[in-house]
Amino acid sequence: MTRNDGRKPDELRKVTITLDYIKHAEGSCLIEFGDTKVICTASVEEKVPPFLKGTGQGWITAEYSMLPRATAQRTVREAAKGKLTGRTQEIQRLIGRSLRCAVDLTALGEITIWIDCDVIQADGGTRTASITGAFVALYRALEKIEKLSAVKNFVAAVSVGVVNGQVLLDLNYEEDSLAEVDMNIVMTDKGEFAEIQGTAEGETFSRDILNTMLNLGEKGIKELIEIQKSVLGVKS
Amino acid sequence: MTRNDGRKPDELRKVTITLDYIKHAEGSCLIEFGDTKVICTASVEEKVPPFLKGTGQGWITAEYSMLPRATAQRTVREAAKGKLTGRTQEIQRLIGRSLRCAVDLTALGEITIWIDCDVIQADGGTRTASITGAFVALYRALEKIEKLSAVKNFVAAVSVGVVNGQVLLDLNYEEDSLAEVDMNIVMTDKGEFAEIQGTAEGETFSRDILNTMLNLGEKGIKELIEIQKSVLGVKS
Amino acid sequence: MTRNDGRKPDELRKVTITLDYIKHAEGSCLIEFGDTKVICTASVEEKVPPFLKGTGQGWITAEYSMLPRATAQRTVREAAKGKLTGRTQEIQRLIGRSLRCAVDLTALGEITIWIDCDVIQADGGTRTASITGAFVALYRALEKIEKLSAVKNFVAAVSVGVVNGQVLLDLNYEEDSLAEVDMNIVMTDKGEFAEIQGTAEGETFSRDILNTMLNLGEKGIKELIEIQKSVLGVKS
Amino acid sequence: MTRNDGRKPDELRKVTITLDYIKHAEGSCLIEFGDTKVICTASVEEKVPPFLKGTGQGWITAEYSMLPRATAQRTVREAAKGKLTGRTQEIQRLIGRSLRCAVDLTALGEITIWIDCDVIQADGGTRTASITGAFVALYRALEKIEKLSAVKNFVAAVSVGVVNGQVLLDLNYEEDSLAEVDMNIVMTDKGEFAEIQGTAEGETFSRDILNTMLNLGEKGIKELIEIQKSVLGVKS
Amino acid sequence: MTRNDGRKPDELRKVTITLDYIKHAEGSCLIEFGDTKVICTASVEEKVPPFLKGTGQGWITAEYSMLPRATAQRTVREAAKGKLTGRTQEIQRLIGRSLRCAVDLTALGEITIWIDCDVIQADGGTRTASITGAFVALYRALEKIEKLSAVKNFVAAVSVGVVNGQVLLDLNYEEDSLAEVDMNIVMTDKGEFAEIQGTAEGETFSRDILNTMLNLGEKGIKELIEIQKSVLGVKS
Amino acid sequence: MTRNDGRKPDELRKVTITLDYIKHAEGSCLIEFGDTKVICTASVEEKVPPFLKGTGQGWITAEYSMLPRATAQRTVREAAKGKLTGRTQEIQRLIGRSLRCAVDLTALGEITIWIDCDVIQADGGTRTASITGAFVALYRALEKIEKLSAVKNFVAAVSVGVVNGQVLLDLNYEEDSLAEVDMNIVMTDKGEFAEIQGTAEGETFSRDILNTMLNLGEKGIKELIEIQKSVLGVKS
Repeated sequence: MTRNDGRKPDELRKVTITLDYIKHAEGSCLIEFGDTKVICTASVEEKVPPFLKGTGQGWITAEYSMLPRATAQRTVREAAKGKLTGRTQEIQRLIGRSLRCAVDLTALGEITIWIDCDVIQADGGTRTASITGAFVALYRALEKIEKLSAVKNFVAAVSVGVVNGQVLLDLNYEEDSLAEVDMNIVMTDKGEFAEIQGTAEGETFSRDILNTMLNLGEKGIKELIEIQKSVLGVKS
Repeated sequence: MTRNDGRKPDELRKVTITLDYIKHAEGSCLIEFGDTKVICTASVEEKVPPFLKGTGQGWITAEYSMLPRATAQRTVREAAKGKLTGRTQEIQRLIGRSLRCAVDLTALGEITIWIDCDVIQADGGTRTASITGAFVALYRALEKIEKLSAVKNFVAAVSVGVVNGQVLLDLNYEEDSLAEVDMNIVMTDKGEFAEIQGTAEGETFSRDILNTMLNLGEKGIKELIEIQKSVLGVKS
Repeated sequence: MTRNDGRKPDELRKVTITLDYIKHAEGSCLIEFGDTKVICTASVEEKVPPFLKGTGQGWITAEYSMLPRATAQRTVREAAKGKLTGRTQEIQRLIGRSLRCAVDLTALGEITIWIDCDVIQADGGTRTASITGAFVALYRALEKIEKLSAVKNFVAAVSVGVVNGQVLLDLNYEEDSLAEVDMNIVMTDKGEFAEIQGTAEGETFSRDILNTMLNLGEKGIKELIEIQKSVLGVKS
Repeated sequence: MTRNDGRKPDELRKVTITLDYIKHAEGSCLIEFGDTKVICTASVEEKVPPFLKGTGQGWITAEYSMLPRATAQRTVREAAKGKLTGRTQEIQRLIGRSLRCAVDLTALGEITIWIDCDVIQADGGTRTASITGAFVALYRALEKIEKLSAVKNFVAAVSVGVVNGQVLLDLNYEEDSLAEVDMNIVMTDKGEFAEIQGTAEGETFSRDILNTMLNLGEKGIKELIEIQKSVLGVKS
Repeated sequence: MTRNDGRKPDELRKVTITLDYIKHAEGSCLIEFGDTKVICTASVEEKVPPFLKGTGQGWITAEYSMLPRATAQRTVREAAKGKLTGRTQEIQRLIGRSLRCAVDLTALGEITIWIDCDVIQADGGTRTASITGAFVALYRALEKIEKLSAVKNFVAAVSVGVVNGQVLLDLNYEEDSLAEVDMNIVMTDKGEFAEIQGTAEGETFSRDILNTMLNLGEKGIKELIEIQKSVLGVKS
Repeated sequence: MTRNDGRKPDELRKVTITLDYIKHAEGSCLIEFGDTKVICTASVEEKVPPFLKGTGQGWITAEYSMLPRATAQRTVREAAKGKLTGRTQEIQRLIGRSLRCAVDLTALGEITIWIDCDVIQADGGTRTASITGAFVALYRALEKIEKLSAVKNFVAAVSVGVVNGQVLLDLNYEEDSLAEVDMNIVMTDKGEFAEIQGTAEGETFSRDILNTMLNLGEKGIKELIEIQKSVLGVKS
């Protein structure tokens, strides 16, 4: 079976990372997974949240948003509604946790790194593109403030899913809206998991399907980390 | 190694389900996982959200909250703050998705079932106790409105985690706060997954550890579903 | 005339107080006025609101809420609406004022006691049950922190009302919804008033009716304070 | 004992009502209780809240606010804070209930009358001045839309309180801030109660004191209703 | 052509300023531009916003609101909606900027002057009446705290507009709602601009029309400043 | 005097417009005024706000936002704060009014065009770049839905200001923060004004300075409209 955009089941979309996309930010990039485009910035603030004051430890936190017309139908701005949706908060927390797995927070000193992922065009996989791009922005910011030694490992993310009974890597919007199962995997360059979120959309899934999805995800993340390293000039 | 409450690594806490705990609700129970106590109710409303109008299909949605003094330190009410935390929204969405996997929504007709999970005392595992109890309340409500035929399978949830390198089932609060990895598993009585959420807290985890956690979770969920069936008078 | 539940006009519903209902709280109880059930907790915080800083005086404040399905029809959560209703705020203020009449705040030292009254099942009289139970939780918390000497008097509350021209004590929901006049009385064990709130629902009421209501309320409160003292092991 | 402004214990402050103060409103007045000044308007809307649709019955609802510098210290606007205080909501509900006791709602037809009470200068008794002035604005609006026959009785309100052990009528701000007991009474021209709210501020009060307060309040309200009738050109 | 109220095109409405209208405020007035009536107060607070702490400089900020029935149709309170409209925020910012042009902030010392403009009756030109009255209240407050030397110049504001092709001074509500162009001008007694805001309502306007409007505005502001000076007892 | 970026006083920054930047939107562009970069989209919705229902007339409305790290210091998201700042609302209203001057709304039919201007990098002039780019997106959308005949004129905007006594065109961020006077001008290709907003920052300005600013603004807008026409393939 071919996919709606001609890819093979285990093939990523074309991934492009434009480094240093926003001049003011300590670290930034524009990341593209096919037609999904996200601006990722990392901003350094010289203080920590109250629960970390005096511990010598740093913090990484993330915010995520979509431009109203990133999507096929215009969506209402959360600022206009006056509150964040549950989906946004879930994604923000996921991005933050994923990146905190990549860095030794005690080696940062008492600073906070704010990650902002703003989706300017959406075509599926906005959260996995955000994590993958956010790591690049974070790495760049740590390079700038000379804290690269705090990086424990690279982190990237990809989606896998079951569409018409077939396991596919890196779903685009059309595939995602047809998927029976949707899974997001966040992994390090050492092949360890930072996060696994598998969700049945009505139909539940077996342990076998789970294993196939994990295999496919692992393959995709290896390729994404290759691209991250190449863009950042890091030897594999 | 023994656990802080004397359990074996693969042992659930004492689980108690008091059926029909709230007189007004179509379905309700008080569920206890050790010292974690949650009131679960299922309320039937004779209409559906706008996106389902005219489809003949029903809906199940969930809300979750904690009493301020359910926790060791009093927490500020979300009603007083004027907004839901990200954690609450994430849990609400998880409960809703999990229950929608248990029911054939097209067999419900155009009704909404509101699930409310209110934690009156918390000692770890509030979201898994909520899902497990919410299924009981839901089942009871469907029985009352004579829609039991819409139930596709039983659903229950349990947490597993890695504490000091050891994989443990059904973490209490103290274990949860020490865990390197925290995973919530939602499964059916047919042994299929409705949801998997595994999260590294700083330290990432290997595929082997993941498999051990899944095995332990499967064991716990089988036991929980036995208890659900027994309380509801359903033969295994 | 007999009442819908068989009581005499001047008869309370069955009152049950389960002490120490929530393990984390300094003081707590589950109070039941018939089918009305409220969890009351008292939490001690080692600071005071800004207007009391440096005065050596303490504070008591109260919050009140209902579970969504405490009522016959499910009500929308205030946390979901993002604001408290006027009714909730009125009740919270009433509970706080009533309890502050029971305690010498200057004898507390600079602490705040947070009272939480969460109605888990409602059948009329939730605010009077809350005050009566909240005093028990408060007493228990003061006992725990060894400040019982700050207690000036016991406080309990009861509703009275006029239904079909007859004055009744401790209205249940059905009676309350038919009442022409609704009055809440908060009184001490010395027979003094802490609060009187009498409200005509369309039809106004005479001074004579007022006096009959006050007499009935006084009788009910004496009985409630007997129960409080018995549960707390205090001699009358 | 003389009072701080030279009045006798049972003496009202100078009361002035300027009729038709706001040109756009169907009914309006500026009411002054000494230095307390409130603009009251009644606005007629040709629809009712959802719960009354199709019943043929009308509704009266009230809103209350203070200009920021109505008080000795500037207070923060509720619009700037984004929410109403508990005090404001309590007063709004009190004004609305009081006026609904004055009118046969079924005789109004399906209209809503919005009462707005805006305190432009405050010196104690703003809620009682508001009710007394709001009735005048309401009466005027009903006159304009030719629904005076719906008026069942006149309604006015006054405060009484205990200051240094002495019962006083119509407390000004300084007296109010010293009062041990504070009571607001809403009464009709037939001498019946629409509302009684008596509150102990720390010290509780006896049945005897209550009776003295009720007597004084009755005297004050009779005088206020005289003034209302005179301003509106109604024979006593 | 005569105007709907008989004025000549370059004629102001009758302007009345009642000084010291609110007893609590350091400075206050009631200003009337015809049927437009605004209560303006200036309140002195002994601190500055965070960005000015330690600079020795003061601040002036303004808030603006309308009573619900200031307008022909009752408008919903912003406090009830829980947020300020864009129009309100725009006017508040305009008033604040305009007044800051009148005062040497460094000569104030570290105080904040809060300006409140509350429209009690609206008939067009509420923002220009607010600025003109607010300056009077501000002047009065500075007199009271003996900081008159900080006043750099007088400031007043007026509207001009194009109605049916004719340029008119100080539009009332009916004219304003018909205007093709609407312009607000804020000017000092030295004939310099503090603010110009010209807005086309659908039809754009030429440079010539702009110049005519500016000429008319200058004439009106000279007259307004005469009135301000006369009320404040300042020689022209 | 040369400017900080080497421009002459009457020289625009380099202006770039990338047409059709967002694939989902009916009309879109990325506009750059030097380092200021704004994504502008125009979205067509097949309905109008309530006040236009049944009139046959269309509507154009605008929203404006900045990415958190568009600025030198990260700013807090309005969605996180739960409300729009006054500045944002002011800009949104300005963009909307400006574009409504460019189109015959009665020729649109009952549709709403939502304009979104999202600043991804800010260096002064974000509102004028937004208006200039928004017109291009709007034009493109009208082309797509075959309503180009509704366009009455082109509209563009530019800032002018006084810095160290010198009048400058198109201020960048550094110039803007030093400016004594700041003016935004919105003009059509026929040389008429849609909007003029001139603001003194502490120091007021004379009629002569105003005229110089208007001249400079007119020059800049002519050049901007040339660029718009060239990008859109419209003959000048």
